[in-house]
Amino acid sequence: MKALSRGAFGALALGLALSAGAGPQTDGAAELATARQLMTAAKADAVGLTFVEDLTTEIGPRLAGSPAEQRARDWAVAELKGLGFANVRVDAFQIPYWSRTHERLSVLGPSSQPMVITALGGSRATPDGGLEAEVVRFTSLADLGAAADSDVAGRIVFIDEPMFRMQDGSGYGMAVAKRSACHKMAAAKGAAACLIRSVGTQHHRMPHTGVMDRRGADGVSQPLGALPAAALSPPDADQLARLLARGPVRVNLDIGVESAEAAPSGNVIAEIEGGAHKDEIVLLGCHLDSWDLGTGAIDDGAGCGIIVGAAKLIDALPGKPDRTIRVVLYGSEELGVFGGDAYARQHTEELSKHVLAAESDFGAGRIWRFQTKFGEGALGHAKTLHTLLAPLGVGPGDNRSGGGPDIGVLARSGVPVVSAGQDGTDYFNYHHTPDDTFDKIDPEEFRQNIAVYAAFAYMAADAGWDFRAPAPATE
Amino acid sequence: MKALSRGAFGALALGLALSAGAGPQTDGAAELATARQLMTAAKADAVGLTFVEDLTTEIGPRLAGSPAEQRARDWAVAELKGLGFANVRVDAFQIPYWSRTHERLSVLGPSSQPMVITALGGSRATPDGGLEAEVVRFTSLADLGAAADSDVAGRIVFIDEPMFRMQDGSGYGMAVAKRSACHKMAAAKGAAACLIRSVGTQHHRMPHTGVMDRRGADGVSQPLGALPAAALSPPDADQLARLLARGPVRVNLDIGVESAEAAPSGNVIAEIEGGAHKDEIVLLGCHLDSWDLGTGAIDDGAGCGIIVGAAKLIDALPGKPDRTIRVVLYGSEELGVFGGDAYARQHTEELSKHVLAAESDFGAGRIWRFQTKFGEGALGHAKTLHTLLAPLGVGPGDNRSGGGPDIGVLARSGVPVVSAGQDGTDYFNYHHTPDDTFDKIDPEEFRQNIAVYAAFAYMAADAGWDFRAPAPATE
Repeated sequence: MKALSRGAFGALALGLALSAGAGPQTDGAAELATARQLMTAAKADAVGLTFVEDLTTEIGPRLAGSPAEQRARDWAVAELKGLGFANVRVDAFQIPYWSRTHERLSVLGPSSQPMVITALGGSRATPDGGLEAEVVRFTSLADLGAAADSDVAGRIVFIDEPMFRMQDGSGYGMAVAKRSACHKMAAAKGAAACLIRSVGTQHHRMPHTGVMDRRGADGVSQPLGALPAAALSPPDADQLARLLARGPVRVNLDIGVESAEAAPSGNVIAEIEGGAHKDEIVLLGCHLDSWDLGTGAIDDGAGCGIIVGAAKLIDALPGKPDRTIRVVLYGSEELGVFGGDAYARQHTEELSKHVLAAESDFGAGRIWRFQTKFGEGALGHAKTLHTLLAPLGVGPGDNRSGGGPDIGVLARSGVPVVSAGQDGTDYFNYHHTPDDTFDKIDPEEFRQNIAVYAAFAYMAADAGWDFRAPAPATE
Repeated sequence: MKALSRGAFGALALGLALSAGAGPQTDGAAELATARQLMTAAKADAVGLTFVEDLTTEIGPRLAGSPAEQRARDWAVAELKGLGFANVRVDAFQIPYWSRTHERLSVLGPSSQPMVITALGGSRATPDGGLEAEVVRFTSLADLGAAADSDVAGRIVFIDEPMFRMQDGSGYGMAVAKRSACHKMAAAKGAAACLIRSVGTQHHRMPHTGVMDRRGADGVSQPLGALPAAALSPPDADQLARLLARGPVRVNLDIGVESAEAAPSGNVIAEIEGGAHKDEIVLLGCHLDSWDLGTGAIDDGAGCGIIVGAAKLIDALPGKPDRTIRVVLYGSEELGVFGGDAYARQHTEELSKHVLAAESDFGAGRIWRFQTKFGEGALGHAKTLHTLLAPLGVGPGDNRSGGGPDIGVLARSGVPVVSAGQDGTDYFNYHHTPDDTFDKIDPEEFRQNIAVYAAFAYMAADAGWDFRAPAPATE
């Protein structure tokens, strides 16, 4: 409860009490004034940016299930306690573990030369000393699917498909299919291994890693996929294509990995405990783990810095909001969204009390639109939030938000979600590469994100709105 | 001699004969018309660009003294013969050999994390398993020089000095001093190894390699420098600086190298044999070797493509120019300008017959100015060339050209030189990194280079000009 909204709050608290947790459809005028104060305060954020800087500097890469991820959890718990958050804890879970030990691709003929690759998450190891085979190129996963087994068997498949650069990141979904599925499709045709052109939009000697779909028929992820598999940097993919245009190309692919059925991971949770309705939860998520190649600054240290920075601004207000704001730093997102699944499993009974969830996992670019997934009766609140955020340069979005990777499971279970859509034009220049480092974060854009998160999270936590509200009966 | 200039040529030939190789100071009007035709023809160049594409694709990296450099020589000889050049041959020489086998830097504390480095040319190997020491940071080579031995002894020196981005590349000379000299200065103070912030202008996880000054007091290069030494990528240098700002940092530096007192290298030479004055030489140079990290596209496949493309345009004219155009693809530039030195040694008696030399070794960016180093009496020819090249967007330059790395020795011995100055604003984003690949060449800018080289080389070879001409006696 804020000094500014104290007058409004009395009425709201009453209304909420009467409607058993589904707040009255107020205009939240008093909260809006406070939200605007938060937006201004965000311009001077130091907490959020320092959080990313310290995490990426002091911990660095933090692969899911690794000792580094454990160090990141310990670090985050200490930081969040130090920042004064309540109920700081770790929800532990286990994941199937995978990590690389080495990865090399050498063209043997027509001329000997090394190529820059990175193993995909779940890649099998090659035999000691590597496997030698001829490369067969396809320009899409569909083309591989259409190929005769005899054209593929015993060879190393190379799927040479580019990614489209799109502001909302939607080029990723199209391009990632080959990363997810090549190993299974190629294995079924008798291939020796899979290579893909990196799923990314830059043109540096920087391959993009990422996980393969390692789920069996039972839907359960195994540590290893079906084949050794790696991504080539874009210039290397070009080079391999040029060499193949000149004639047959033999290569040696040498990948080493470590894997285990189970390794420790966990979600780090911290809260601003609410007032009268503290059992009602506004969830802000990010993921704490990162790929091993970079230091996980834009993916997803930035997301964690944004939600921690936003929550801290709210926490610094003179009073608590009515509902609880729960910050969740998910573990092991990169290897298969394990943190999100574990959270939904571990908090099943509480899910109906999640009034809203949002996740920041798309870098630190400026937010350009605000999507929702609300009940039809709550679209007026979406409109109010659009108006609130417009001065930050945020345009309105549709009501078809899917949430995000880790909160997708909440959205599918009916929890209302919002997506503060970041400009992803450049995101896939860095995503899952060694280049995902702190210098890639623009502080001003980062702080605009904090402003957006602080504003909508505060509104959701204090204005008593019910985002599940069904369409009013017509007639 | 060209059909277009046949009329002029008679007079020129006579003039040259009378002046013993120092041609009459004509305006070269007939040649200028042909030069303009060459400039137009360059827009459709296929030879030059294909030369770079094929070299970087079919050979790839070609480290000085390595089997790959030998393959590049064999390939270049076959290509140049195939293109119809005369007197294609290799001038062999030997170099002190160095190559990397592995390079790793791991931060041990406060938190374990890997860093992206590349060994510098001439780096010594560390002991097996690496050497462990604390890092001491300096912001310049001068600061290291001023440090007490006790602050340096037993530690790993880190020189964290950025490079300035400058169109003419002059930021390089300032920044490269630490790469050349750190090992000797740090060794004298008892340091265990040297690290430097990459000499480059980009901000990717891409370290820039390059050679250290390995010359002894006798001026002769040895295979190995005084210490293990490596460059950190810019984000890694930032990270190390941030860690050091938080407290002491221990690292493990693990570098493996191979070296030898002598390895085979060579300069590949091809000519367009001149007419009446075929003993007079217009030399166009580039270097054929490259660093091992990239495929040597901008450094210096592009330079070779430019001079080969330009020479081929001249060779395709209906008649030969009066003087010989000699194309020299120098070997082993990167490890110590060994090809340039070998050429000067092997062609000492011919140097007075070198009427002009030029070298393309600064990428494929648009040429923006044209510098000369002519005798004072030949400055009118510089002016004529400036006027000729202006329509290509080339501005005039001063008369203080130093030539270039491999022809510097010729310039110092009095051979007139020109520098067709390329825009180097982005050159040091790629130079000596894995990112030096074919896709970084802009074909249109590359062809502008060919136009410039074809035009001035033709003028130098056919207009009978004497670029050594001293200032006319005044009174």
